[in-house]
Amino acid sequence: MDVKQLKHLPLADVQITGGFWKERQETISDVTLYAVRDQFEKTGRFEAFECEYKEGNAIKPQCYWDSDVAKWIEAVAYSLLYHPNEELEEDVDQLVELIAANQQEDGYFNIYFMVVEPGKRFTDRNAHELYCCGHLIEAAIAYDMATGKRKFLDCMERYAALIDRVFRIDGSASFCTPGHPELELALMKLYRYTQNETYLKLAEYFINTRGTKEEQSLTDWCNEKYAQDHAPLREQNTAEGHAVRAAYLYSGMADVAYETKDSELFEACRRIFSNIVDKRMYITGSTGSSHMGEAFTVDYDLQNETAYAETCSALAMAWFADRMTALEPNGRYADIVELELYNGGLSGISLDGKSFFYENPLSIDPKLRNRDVSVKEQAHYPITQRLEVFGCSCCPPNVSRFIASVGNFIYQYDTDTLYVNQYIESDTLTKVNDETISILQQTRYPANGKINLQLVATKLKRIALRIPGWCRKFTVTMNETEMTPNVENGYIYLDIEPGVTEIELLLAVYPRLVAANPSVQEDANKAALMMGPVVYCLEGIENGINLQSLQVDAQAKFVPSFEQNYGVNIITAKGYRTVRPVKEALYYDLDERQQVPQTLHFIPYFAFANRGESEMTVWVSVK
Amino acid sequence: MDVKQLKHLPLADVQITGGFWKERQETISDVTLYAVRDQFEKTGRFEAFECEYKEGNAIKPQCYWDSDVAKWIEAVAYSLLYHPNEELEEDVDQLVELIAANQQEDGYFNIYFMVVEPGKRFTDRNAHELYCCGHLIEAAIAYDMATGKRKFLDCMERYAALIDRVFRIDGSASFCTPGHPELELALMKLYRYTQNETYLKLAEYFINTRGTKEEQSLTDWCNEKYAQDHAPLREQNTAEGHAVRAAYLYSGMADVAYETKDSELFEACRRIFSNIVDKRMYITGSTGSSHMGEAFTVDYDLQNETAYAETCSALAMAWFADRMTALEPNGRYADIVELELYNGGLSGISLDGKSFFYENPLSIDPKLRNRDVSVKEQAHYPITQRLEVFGCSCCPPNVSRFIASVGNFIYQYDTDTLYVNQYIESDTLTKVNDETISILQQTRYPANGKINLQLVATKLKRIALRIPGWCRKFTVTMNETEMTPNVENGYIYLDIEPGVTEIELLLAVYPRLVAANPSVQEDANKAALMMGPVVYCLEGIENGINLQSLQVDAQAKFVPSFEQNYGVNIITAKGYRTVRPVKEALYYDLDERQQVPQTLHFIPYFAFANRGESEMTVWVSVK
Repeated sequence: MDVKQLKHLPLADVQITGGFWKERQETISDVTLYAVRDQFEKTGRFEAFECEYKEGNAIKPQCYWDSDVAKWIEAVAYSLLYHPNEELEEDVDQLVELIAANQQEDGYFNIYFMVVEPGKRFTDRNAHELYCCGHLIEAAIAYDMATGKRKFLDCMERYAALIDRVFRIDGSASFCTPGHPELELALMKLYRYTQNETYLKLAEYFINTRGTKEEQSLTDWCNEKYAQDHAPLREQNTAEGHAVRAAYLYSGMADVAYETKDSELFEACRRIFSNIVDKRMYITGSTGSSHMGEAFTVDYDLQNETAYAETCSALAMAWFADRMTALEPNGRYADIVELELYNGGLSGISLDGKSFFYENPLSIDPKLRNRDVSVKEQAHYPITQRLEVFGCSCCPPNVSRFIASVGNFIYQYDTDTLYVNQYIESDTLTKVNDETISILQQTRYPANGKINLQLVATKLKRIALRIPGWCRKFTVTMNETEMTPNVENGYIYLDIEPGVTEIELLLAVYPRLVAANPSVQEDANKAALMMGPVVYCLEGIENGINLQSLQVDAQAKFVPSFEQNYGVNIITAKGYRTVRPVKEALYYDLDERQQVPQTLHFIPYFAFANRGESEMTVWVSVK
Repeated sequence: MDVKQLKHLPLADVQITGGFWKERQETISDVTLYAVRDQFEKTGRFEAFECEYKEGNAIKPQCYWDSDVAKWIEAVAYSLLYHPNEELEEDVDQLVELIAANQQEDGYFNIYFMVVEPGKRFTDRNAHELYCCGHLIEAAIAYDMATGKRKFLDCMERYAALIDRVFRIDGSASFCTPGHPELELALMKLYRYTQNETYLKLAEYFINTRGTKEEQSLTDWCNEKYAQDHAPLREQNTAEGHAVRAAYLYSGMADVAYETKDSELFEACRRIFSNIVDKRMYITGSTGSSHMGEAFTVDYDLQNETAYAETCSALAMAWFADRMTALEPNGRYADIVELELYNGGLSGISLDGKSFFYENPLSIDPKLRNRDVSVKEQAHYPITQRLEVFGCSCCPPNVSRFIASVGNFIYQYDTDTLYVNQYIESDTLTKVNDETISILQQTRYPANGKINLQLVATKLKRIALRIPGWCRKFTVTMNETEMTPNVENGYIYLDIEPGVTEIELLLAVYPRLVAANPSVQEDANKAALMMGPVVYCLEGIENGINLQSLQVDAQAKFVPSFEQNYGVNIITAKGYRTVRPVKEALYYDLDERQQVPQTLHFIPYFAFANRGESEMTVWVSVK
């Protein structure tokens, strides 16, 4: 399939003005950025940039700390676009000064290898060295874009040039490609931002080299699939290994395919994307079902209670899917972005913006957390309450930058068409091709399905509106005339006239039960409730204990009601609880069973575990 | 509660003459004893008794080998009672010669500590040293009982005397109580067989000491609950730690309670038994749901796919339950013996008697065995096919001695009543109190529920017949007169006249669906099919893939038909398979779901995995 080259609008031109995401962006700016900053201060992550660590110091920088802070800087940068904040900007400026001051003569910058293991740079593929560089590059671009302050970016360009020399030109490092991919997509961002082809060449080198050479293995408990090293990337068919790293890598692949119009690489991305979405993804959009290595396992192995489903895996999938839209305007990609936005990505942060989940199980039974009564910490069950800090703190700043830059997901365009991928209340004034256009989007989506768009443009020929894959009914009017377009690959295309175009799109957003492929044995004869893109769950708080004993009535009337605190609806429905008259015995004849009516109270999955420890389940037995 | 003291009949007096267990006993004698012998020869277990190991030799004896061979000897001994076999008897005689020749001056005998770590005897609580002694004692008693050859028993009495001196009198060992309990019950057996009170005292010492002293911990990955060391035994309320060791320990406790009429200890046994049976036991009777340490976990944590459920845990539960009957004639104990006989115990051996399961999962999805695509051997899923040999080969000889001595479970008696605990075709001529009685039992149970008993006795006053807990309807005639006795604690009591008593008991044995307590979340809204004491399962072979997508109709007609190969019925019933028209996508709207009628083919659980790798499930969704 040919590579298309849709473009994004500059993030700075897209202002989120209200609704679901405005509230979340404000929470990031007002609460989360500070909460993460405080944790990073407490844990010594900021101080580490002073590069004054000496052996024996109480706090030793870890090899991934640069990336934690870089993601926080990136989040601050995006936040500055809609929420100026001198204090945080000053914090970042100070960090940038430290980076500039401590960067080595030849451009190298990595705290761990400068102060903890000096002399060992580029020797350990598993030490997150290039991964840290990638995040620093992303942060530097974001900060330059948001503030016009180029110092950080200059540093990072010098570092990127060094890496190009060491890895691509000289081949003098102890390994060939990043152990933790991410640098590839960062280099592509840097190439696009600077138009310096060195970065494109280096990214291409990493993408084309991976899986073709004998490579340093990562650890003793994994094989080459863990790092996607098992075959040349363009020959791979399935998503393998560490789910977060994998999706970053696939994002970099997609970027290279885009810039080089490499249809072979694009086809590999398509195969891998399909493998994930059709066989290896939780209904919440999360991936990586095994806690060992946060890894993909086999098709249809999507266990709920022990789901690893790292927050970052959902974020990374959104970024991968968004890149796929640019290569092929097919609604299935933006559908996945949407799924991540409202579920597996968002569930990683508490409603108050202060605490986080690393893992995002689809079922919680608190008693199982303590099942290892007589053996020490053997069973792996995810934590049941969000935490304020993690040793490995990738998710908190990652979900911050994700939410702060949600405007990136809304629009793309090509020579004649504006694609509306996400329905998010926003006000946009931007340049598209060679004209200035404005787009006003008003909506309370996904609380309801009404979206009003006002487009002012002269040369654009068409607007393409995504009709979500879950949506079975919609109406659309343009300038008050009802239109009846066909859905083509997930979009309706409307021809527009120069001037003002007023569109009203009504997507039928209603509660619906969703089943899983019968090969997902965990979910057999169960259903998940969704409303629009939002996945729901039951918590013990309203629904009592033993949630698996509940049944939802497939014919029930599902009653939504808007809940301000969540920004979407909560839903009630008639259901049943399986009980028995005599409670003591473990097993009893089925005909003693009684099914007692019980109203089921569903809340959005992203809001689970915000009210203390409780049972939770996404999948509910169907009566 | 007061301790009763029911007695067992001598095993030699109870001949299994036909039906279900006759076939299995013949398989043990004709096939299994040879199969296990061959494996033990191949692996050097027999040769080890020559005690000629030197460092550097290819084969190093393991610390549990004595016990493996001891259980095989015990099984041979029981087999000789119904199936004379000069070849195997000679094999045992040779082993006994080696034991006698290599036993140390002071009575010590343990191959590992004599040849691999000499000088370290009684220093490592985790080295199965006393456990091996226990099994050697059991084997020696069995061999003397079966053959009248006392040499082995003489050796073991000397060894027991040494242990008494070291542990009870001198307290000179590095630990106080067995790391792997078993010796306690063996000493009680030895006391009953020899009437030497030393053994009773030593057993009492071990039982009363456990949990009262600072004790050597077993390994670094467990705590004191793992070895039931967390409290004095008479204060314990829950079953903890290694499930097999625990049940052996509880058996020893029950034996001491019996002989000493210790009602406090008996009450502890009752509490623990209830905790297991009411909260921690699979429907198959197996226990120990965690693969880490084969351990008990928390109440209602009975996961099917990852069930450890070691074969020996089911056997040990049968022995514990049988001892409880002797303390308190309540049918719930013999119900559990029966459950183990036809399910979790029997499932450990293949139909042909040649291969074995260590673990007995209640659900198999073969694809999950290979879920660790990119990380090495992390997930724990039980094997899906029986093996001919294990490194730790406790189960094969254990299930052999279990089946060869099944006659032990049938009867118990007190001063005036004969208790019929199990319905097994058999012919018994024995002495009870001070008269000789004969009991002829004819039945094809559990294929059907008709049991004919002919009792000839003069002084016995009553016969008590167990009415299984699962049985809702029965009729009983005595000397052609229909009787209408009440069921008291699981038994009906019939007063008998001197002379011949003819009894016909008809238990209503029909297929029935059984549910689990709602707290067992894994089994919620599912049911297991049972017929009499036999638990059934579905295998992929007849029922296709994705067994969890099947539903059984609670109102269905279940059609049993006798299957010679299994010795019980197979059962078919109407059910449904949940399918969807379009197969590709992972998630789809529930209303696209179709439920297609499908006949479900149930086979007895004990027969699973006898026809190649296949999916399997005990618990089936209920429509």
